[in-house]
Amino acid sequence: MKCRCGRKAIYHRRQSGQYLCAVCFSKSIQKKFRRTIRKHSLVKRGDNIAVGLSGGKDSTVLLHLLHDLQKRRPFSLEAIIIDEGIAGYRDTTIEVAAKNCSLLDINYTIFSFHQEFGITLDDTQPGVSHCSYCGVFRRYLLNQKSRELHFDKLAVGLNLDDEVQSILMNLLRGDLFRFGRTGPYYKESPQFVPRIKPLREISEKEVMVYAVVNNIEVDHSVCPYASEAFRSDIRDFLDRMESKRPTTKYSLLRSYDRLFPYLQDQLTADVARCERCGEPTVNTLCKACKMLEDITDTGQ
Amino acid sequence: MKCRCGRKAIYHRRQSGQYLCAVCFSKSIQKKFRRTIRKHSLVKRGDNIAVGLSGGKDSTVLLHLLHDLQKRRPFSLEAIIIDEGIAGYRDTTIEVAAKNCSLLDINYTIFSFHQEFGITLDDTQPGVSHCSYCGVFRRYLLNQKSRELHFDKLAVGLNLDDEVQSILMNLLRGDLFRFGRTGPYYKESPQFVPRIKPLREISEKEVMVYAVVNNIEVDHSVCPYASEAFRSDIRDFLDRMESKRPTTKYSLLRSYDRLFPYLQDQLTADVARCERCGEPTVNTLCKACKMLEDITDTGQ
Repeated sequence: MKCRCGRKAIYHRRQSGQYLCAVCFSKSIQKKFRRTIRKHSLVKRGDNIAVGLSGGKDSTVLLHLLHDLQKRRPFSLEAIIIDEGIAGYRDTTIEVAAKNCSLLDINYTIFSFHQEFGITLDDTQPGVSHCSYCGVFRRYLLNQKSRELHFDKLAVGLNLDDEVQSILMNLLRGDLFRFGRTGPYYKESPQFVPRIKPLREISEKEVMVYAVVNNIEVDHSVCPYASEAFRSDIRDFLDRMESKRPTTKYSLLRSYDRLFPYLQDQLTADVARCERCGEPTVNTLCKACKMLEDITDTGQ
Repeated sequence: MKCRCGRKAIYHRRQSGQYLCAVCFSKSIQKKFRRTIRKHSLVKRGDNIAVGLSGGKDSTVLLHLLHDLQKRRPFSLEAIIIDEGIAGYRDTTIEVAAKNCSLLDINYTIFSFHQEFGITLDDTQPGVSHCSYCGVFRRYLLNQKSRELHFDKLAVGLNLDDEVQSILMNLLRGDLFRFGRTGPYYKESPQFVPRIKPLREISEKEVMVYAVVNNIEVDHSVCPYASEAFRSDIRDFLDRMESKRPTTKYSLLRSYDRLFPYLQDQLTADVARCERCGEPTVNTLCKACKMLEDITDTGQ
């Protein structure tokens, strides 16, 4: 198959029926990325932006795309890397993350669960899943450190698949508070550094292909804890629906984005400060402090 | 297993962990039915209500429950039966529907696709599925006839499963107009007779068990056209999720119901009159007239 430019196609985009060569494919991804940024005003001139970088495909591709964007508009870019303490996994992805930062001449800072909370993720033997701990502690650190380092925004590498999975998960769980926070740009209170998701309209597969085509070194290893059952079920279902009707994920995202303006104002809870650490929370204790307390209580 | 009343349990409600005997099960369904009616003010004293009756389990159980409710508050109740013209299927369900009406001393009127549109569902050899035709023509007739016969409300037998399937289908299709119309009570314009769904919190399985336990004669045959692929996929997924987490369907309904008030005002389109038949539509021609035109054009 040929791309419409005449070059050999390397990718078939089922949603549109297009066959794309490496160059046209990359251009289309960059275009989509910039369109998402523009549509939701995610990056402004002079912004001081941190990327939550893991070394995996999503955040690494995001780092590269944001770095390219700097040529078009002036804003500053650094990376924050979280070391959860997952032996044999995170150490190698951090290496890849650091290498990409060096290649692009981007400053980065590493924060570890061990240093900040006194435990590694491997240490916890939780009743709740490792993924729950990790999610809470990661979000906590990314927000706290972005704020303390005076970043205006925290860019996260969530792609279309992540986004629609979350939308559906929260809906099926009846968690409308979280459902109302899955938008492209979410600013909850002065204590929260706004999170932006410039990859939310790009599918996981296309992020992967973009990394390959552009020789971006990413770590492809899978987190040993990555099998949270609920999200896997939702992922399988959405993948199956997408394979039958290749616009399903976009349609779900569009549905959500049309609902989002009503949700954002109506379904957010009041945000207080955690009694223990002062970080934002809707309860007396924030989730991270609650989890740390549970870990201490169970004598882990 | 024993029911908490001491009688032998005939049903295990996984959501609550309860084991229920036939009497306690029936009472719980009647209670849930009345709670839904009360919560959304679905039936008022003096209302003139039509049930869209097919003879299948849902609409027949609805007829019986509404008939019971008449002992508690005065309102009038009749049934409208639609004969789509599905040989070997609808003729037998209509018999069952008529029998139930006679048993409960409820008036009914039968309207047929053949008489109203000049075609039976069996006659159509559509590019679109029979289910699409049927859905449009049924809704059209039920609304038009309810209005012409001066009913205040049209009660339809949609159960919890139907409801959450529709919610998810419309979301995945990106059809927010329909998504915004899946509530417990929907009144669009003076041309629309408000539709009420008193069974929307009762699962398909429990409707079935209620019919059996109360010796309600229902027709269990399956419509020969009932295999619309998209809804089947959604049904399978939700059933699988529910079997893993027995509150999934309720949670999804709750999510939706919390969103509904925002949607109802914001996501509805202006309703005009169909150029041809005068029935309500958002386009120039209503869907039924458009479909009839397509059928005529293709010379069926």
